[in-house]
Amino acid sequence: MLKGIAASPGIEIGKAYVLKEQKVTINRENIADNMVEKEIKRLEEAIVKSKDQLEKIKEKAERELGQDKAEIFGAHLMVLEDPVFLDEIKAKIRETRITAENAVSIVSQNYIEMFNNMEDEYLKERAADVKDVSDRIIKNILGVPIETLADISEKVIVIAKDLTPSDTAQMNKQKVLAFATDMGGRTSHTAIMARSLEIPAVVGLVDISGQAAAGDVIIVDGNKGVVYINPDEKTLKEYEKLKQDYIKYRQELKQLKDLPGETRDRARRVELSANIGTPKDVKGALENGAEGVGLYRTEFLYMDRENLPSEEEQFKAYKEVAESMAPRPIIIRTLDIGGDKKLPYLEMPDELNPFLGWRAIRMCLDRPHILKTQLRAILRASHYGNLKIMYPMVSRAEEIRKANAILEEARQELRAEGIPFDENLEVGIMVEIPSAAVIADILAKEVDFFSIGTNDLIQYTLAVDRMNEHISILYEPLHPAVLRLIKNVIDASHKAGKWTGMCGEMAGDVTAAPILLGMGLDEFSMSASSIPQVKKIIRALSYDEAKQIAEKALSLERPEEIREMVEGVIQKLK
Amino acid sequence: MLKGIAASPGIEIGKAYVLKEQKVTINRENIADNMVEKEIKRLEEAIVKSKDQLEKIKEKAERELGQDKAEIFGAHLMVLEDPVFLDEIKAKIRETRITAENAVSIVSQNYIEMFNNMEDEYLKERAADVKDVSDRIIKNILGVPIETLADISEKVIVIAKDLTPSDTAQMNKQKVLAFATDMGGRTSHTAIMARSLEIPAVVGLVDISGQAAAGDVIIVDGNKGVVYINPDEKTLKEYEKLKQDYIKYRQELKQLKDLPGETRDRARRVELSANIGTPKDVKGALENGAEGVGLYRTEFLYMDRENLPSEEEQFKAYKEVAESMAPRPIIIRTLDIGGDKKLPYLEMPDELNPFLGWRAIRMCLDRPHILKTQLRAILRASHYGNLKIMYPMVSRAEEIRKANAILEEARQELRAEGIPFDENLEVGIMVEIPSAAVIADILAKEVDFFSIGTNDLIQYTLAVDRMNEHISILYEPLHPAVLRLIKNVIDASHKAGKWTGMCGEMAGDVTAAPILLGMGLDEFSMSASSIPQVKKIIRALSYDEAKQIAEKALSLERPEEIREMVEGVIQKLK
Repeated sequence: MLKGIAASPGIEIGKAYVLKEQKVTINRENIADNMVEKEIKRLEEAIVKSKDQLEKIKEKAERELGQDKAEIFGAHLMVLEDPVFLDEIKAKIRETRITAENAVSIVSQNYIEMFNNMEDEYLKERAADVKDVSDRIIKNILGVPIETLADISEKVIVIAKDLTPSDTAQMNKQKVLAFATDMGGRTSHTAIMARSLEIPAVVGLVDISGQAAAGDVIIVDGNKGVVYINPDEKTLKEYEKLKQDYIKYRQELKQLKDLPGETRDRARRVELSANIGTPKDVKGALENGAEGVGLYRTEFLYMDRENLPSEEEQFKAYKEVAESMAPRPIIIRTLDIGGDKKLPYLEMPDELNPFLGWRAIRMCLDRPHILKTQLRAILRASHYGNLKIMYPMVSRAEEIRKANAILEEARQELRAEGIPFDENLEVGIMVEIPSAAVIADILAKEVDFFSIGTNDLIQYTLAVDRMNEHISILYEPLHPAVLRLIKNVIDASHKAGKWTGMCGEMAGDVTAAPILLGMGLDEFSMSASSIPQVKKIIRALSYDEAKQIAEKALSLERPEEIREMVEGVIQKLK
Repeated sequence: MLKGIAASPGIEIGKAYVLKEQKVTINRENIADNMVEKEIKRLEEAIVKSKDQLEKIKEKAERELGQDKAEIFGAHLMVLEDPVFLDEIKAKIRETRITAENAVSIVSQNYIEMFNNMEDEYLKERAADVKDVSDRIIKNILGVPIETLADISEKVIVIAKDLTPSDTAQMNKQKVLAFATDMGGRTSHTAIMARSLEIPAVVGLVDISGQAAAGDVIIVDGNKGVVYINPDEKTLKEYEKLKQDYIKYRQELKQLKDLPGETRDRARRVELSANIGTPKDVKGALENGAEGVGLYRTEFLYMDRENLPSEEEQFKAYKEVAESMAPRPIIIRTLDIGGDKKLPYLEMPDELNPFLGWRAIRMCLDRPHILKTQLRAILRASHYGNLKIMYPMVSRAEEIRKANAILEEARQELRAEGIPFDENLEVGIMVEIPSAAVIADILAKEVDFFSIGTNDLIQYTLAVDRMNEHISILYEPLHPAVLRLIKNVIDASHKAGKWTGMCGEMAGDVTAAPILLGMGLDEFSMSASSIPQVKKIIRALSYDEAKQIAEKALSLERPEEIREMVEGVIQKLK
């Protein structure tokens, strides 16, 4: 039994298909001066060959997986055609007199490190792309054959050191039951891909690719994050049952889709919404029964381009979501960029502690034209659906007033231009900085609603960067300080006649849900796929039971006790 | 009138002495292969010359300023003799075929950037040292004469782009009335030196060195951070009076030295203590009337060396402070390293957000042998004075229990070894993470006292890195959330029969002092030089007045209103 990181839920049992890493040996020695041009030629030939391969893969992906999934190979081809990247490699060969494969390895390593140091998931993925492409070039320089998952013909569990975007894109999806890999975390490419394919996966297993052999019987438990290699009869039987139970559970969840998020006794109804990043995510939200969008992140509109998106471009994206979700409400968060998420076309400082830095509303208030363009676009789109505006990273009342003054300017301009918009559009803030939670009573006067951003709120409250592996164990949503701050925000909003939602990961956590319900949280917004499980818990409880759970949780001092108490209640419900 | 940063308080009027920067022109072109050895020779000659100069400066500094202040030139000489540094420069000349001055400039720039990126003031100063030495080498390579402040013969106000450690050390202290510089912040070398010399200084004036000419009449107002060049008669008269008032104010403060920190009506007495970094700081603490040490930072024992300090070394340092302060209490903070403060001999990860990272008690609990050695040393020293122990960066009760378990082991070992220690030594924590402030009632059960570390508490509560110039304006000690958290900590400790101190910069702030006094803070620990001014405020108020101020402050919503209200009360007292 190997313990790893649960990356995608579900249980599968099947035969191992071990993707062996082809070893490449990079010649790190210096070359003679007269060999330089020969190495450049080796590089250029490998680039041509890599392009051919990638174009074929892209065509196959377009045919079999659709335009969307094939886009990644467009990105790979762009790397191959990037003159800056290629010139840098050639310059390296010439100036430091090294082999072509060594130059590719050194130059791409710099890019990989740069991308890896970014916190943003989207940009982090770029590291995997560069790695994927440079490995391909190196193998082609060295004439090493490139194995693919394209030819799998029977149902298998794929085991590998790590899976690259080209591995997963070429894979025959009908044949892959689950993934288990040595490397990776919850946000690695493999994990994201597994969740999007809805197949179980365990990552970070350290050496499963060395320990499992082709044909071994494998159990992948993506709920607990464990993998068995050739389990005994008893374990196998147990897991056959667990697998069936899990399938049944998932089916039950699916049946909840069109039912409301209300307690067993119908004494309390809450809104269960989805967090989305692009208009494309609306489909998944609706499929999972989302009653609205509690967080529409707008950063994607600003990324992967060379200038700010125009008001018109933004208007189209917001309108698309407004119309496709109507009449359901959508909370649009204004630009949350800066800190670790940078835009190449805006001058942004390097910061020692980007999480405590110049980002989100701080940056937007210093560059009001960016905010105003966005607010105009949102206002215009509000005519086509039920939109709300939310400002991120608010630490003091002054910031809300300043942002609202810009919003008011935008409103007046639109009125003067005769452009229609929703005059009653609600405006709220993310509560994700401890100071905002502590003075929720003061801030409640300035807003129509709060949405608690637990990911950041927990990080700041506990002074823990959850991405930092050395201390991530201290990141604890059920820390009594976190629960008290959440309670304070909810109470303050209700006292002022306003409402409070939550759009951090905690909103989709089944252990936290009964506590939050009992505290009076009005809206839960989460990854669309988590909605059914939270709905199930809420529908299983009476409002009084939930209130008692919340009260009990607030009286306990240790997160472990709180977790145990809630899990005890959940067990009894089953 | 030029506006800069108030770096050292006081007012001076005098004639300008402008230290002109000697321009150096670095030849950045490539050199011919056969010139390499010649450049190496130029470098070596300049090194010899620089050593001669520095040795003379060091002798002079030892004679005139004492061993202590001369130590910096020992550090400079060490840079000059550092084989790694010199070899790197030579390798640069050879490998990239550049001039000696260019190589010195490039290599030292790397070191300067490295040191500049460190948050720790002590290490940041190393950047100034490297810059100082490398400028000297470059000037000597180019044969540019080096101007010094050694020859000033009349009383002047020194104006410069920036002042280096060698500038200030060579300076004739009797003749310098004040500093005004283009560069620098409150923690720059110039600012620190001015405060230690107790002369007024304004830094960050952007271009005063270009605007003032030798002999101009200059007013330096180190209280407000403004400088006048050739002021009109009226301003001059005004400032003559302000200067006299300030001198009188300072004299009054000096007379307070041996008076207690109690309110006018004697209804409330608090402890006014000093923060210290090394045993040497005890002198300044006592001179300013410190009734104890509220924060003894122990990081200096661990820095600038190649391995961990032994128990014996630590014991000596703690015993020295214990004895020289006795019977006054000393709170020793256990090692607060990690994050941005790194030790070369401990393997420490690079972190994206070091302030939210693996530091202080988090690191110590992962490396218990380091903590235990320190706790044994403190316990042993406790036999010789009144010591208390304080753990930094506590975010949850579990951490206190774990640290206390190690403390208990140390106690048992010492008992078994028959080594005496104070069996009643108090153990407390720094409250500097929002979660600790929010659950102060829970943590109060585990400690004898709290000490609020406002610098970090404010940073985390507001999610603002105060060193980040883009957002430092958001760093606000009087933010209502900060005041509420402080009140919560004080109340929780009193309810449990414990006491609360404060050891962040806020404790030395005259505007905050009346509020903190009224909230019931028991101990104020600050830079020694701030003690008299805080004592003066406390002695001018009755306890009821302070309580009213605190209540009023907690009822206001905007920091500006709070500041205005307190300053109004302070004005009336005068």
